[in-house]
Amino acid sequence: MANSPSGDSMTDRLVRVLETFTPTRTVQTTADIGRRADLPRSSAHRIVSELVVSGLLERDETNGVRIGMRLWELATRSSDALRLRQAALPLMERVQTRIREHTQLAILEQDEALFLERLSAPRSGANVTRIAGRLPLHASSSGLLLLAYADADTRGRVLARPLQRLTPDTIVEPDALRRKLDEIRILGHVVAPGYIEDVSTGVAVPIRAGGPRVVAALSVVLPRENDTEPALRELLSAARDIERSLRPHS
Amino acid sequence: MANSPSGDSMTDRLVRVLETFTPTRTVQTTADIGRRADLPRSSAHRIVSELVVSGLLERDETNGVRIGMRLWELATRSSDALRLRQAALPLMERVQTRIREHTQLAILEQDEALFLERLSAPRSGANVTRIAGRLPLHASSSGLLLLAYADADTRGRVLARPLQRLTPDTIVEPDALRRKLDEIRILGHVVAPGYIEDVSTGVAVPIRAGGPRVVAALSVVLPRENDTEPALRELLSAARDIERSLRPHS
Repeated sequence: MANSPSGDSMTDRLVRVLETFTPTRTVQTTADIGRRADLPRSSAHRIVSELVVSGLLERDETNGVRIGMRLWELATRSSDALRLRQAALPLMERVQTRIREHTQLAILEQDEALFLERLSAPRSGANVTRIAGRLPLHASSSGLLLLAYADADTRGRVLARPLQRLTPDTIVEPDALRRKLDEIRILGHVVAPGYIEDVSTGVAVPIRAGGPRVVAALSVVLPRENDTEPALRELLSAARDIERSLRPHS
Repeated sequence: MANSPSGDSMTDRLVRVLETFTPTRTVQTTADIGRRADLPRSSAHRIVSELVVSGLLERDETNGVRIGMRLWELATRSSDALRLRQAALPLMERVQTRIREHTQLAILEQDEALFLERLSAPRSGANVTRIAGRLPLHASSSGLLLLAYADADTRGRVLARPLQRLTPDTIVEPDALRRKLDEIRILGHVVAPGYIEDVSTGVAVPIRAGGPRVVAALSVVLPRENDTEPALRELLSAARDIERSLRPHS
């Protein structure tokens, strides 16, 4: 795509415009978008206008600009990961009904755990995850599970980085983390007590789609004092049923 | 944004690239994308490469290109409509558990009903809707509900168009449709027997977010021979609870 006078590509500029929107900033003026995307005023106006015409952005009655549903539609209807989410949802509901704590589905995405879905009971305990939110691989139960089954490149890259300590119990020492990942592959699941929040324990199991490759992590977040066994049993049974429903001829 | 030699804007080209992906075409070669988006070969390569770098598209092991999760993430985390979906999901589960038929949430989007969510029991009957799929306003129960409460401009525009007959029972005559819309506003719900599929009846109720404006339709699709009363009762009660959970200080 043609480059702007400042040398960044038009795609870059467009992505920068979209990225000025966040979970807590869903409506902005065009001037704010331009400032946050570091674009000249006239470029910001042109790009926003074109994106409104295409439906990727929407303008409301008071001239505020927000993300358009067309963007979600394009992203959703063409994604294999979101078909996985669709297959998983009824089984996640089963886990949630029986365990009555947060139930989540995550995939590995750009070296983080990206949450595709979360079901929560009104009286569930603390939980830092959010749909379309991300958590570090080394600290969340979903992340550890995905990291344990990731390719060697991804594991090496994450282990080579400084790892942030989120609680006193977060594993941040590379050798200790390597041992934890080995243990996860042997057990076929992970229990992560207080790694990301002092008061919670995450339990996660793998979901495979046909082959040996793990495509997602199914997890439950429990108050730390709870027994993890019932949740683990439900997760393993739900994962088996999700895998069955992903098979072409089931 | 700068225009290409052929005069279409860069945003247009980018949207055209994204739009070559469909629910049944999730992986394409760059050459196919270029052909379907009507772009010169070199432009297609450049745009796809830039979109892959930004994460809006992804390239798999065999060089196939697919929609990237980054696009879904940007769309989802910044959208008010998807927060509505999040608030609605637990109540949709309640309807689905009790009625055991397809339960759906739709919004009005570019003169069509766009489905944000659908829950289905394995043994539910026929249903043409799909998450991130669309249905015509005049033929689906969700669409009729949204049209009944839409602004006068939207209603006028839809009524002025030729309306497609999908079954012998679809209302395609503008005066009859206008009477149906009046009836919906009086009743506060819609029953649409066989309008879109001979074998099914849709039942839909409005969801408001604070003010008088209807922001979404909550619906159930039943086998046509079923009694619609229990579904209607459940939908009205779920809509009330969704509206309550959308209030800031609930």
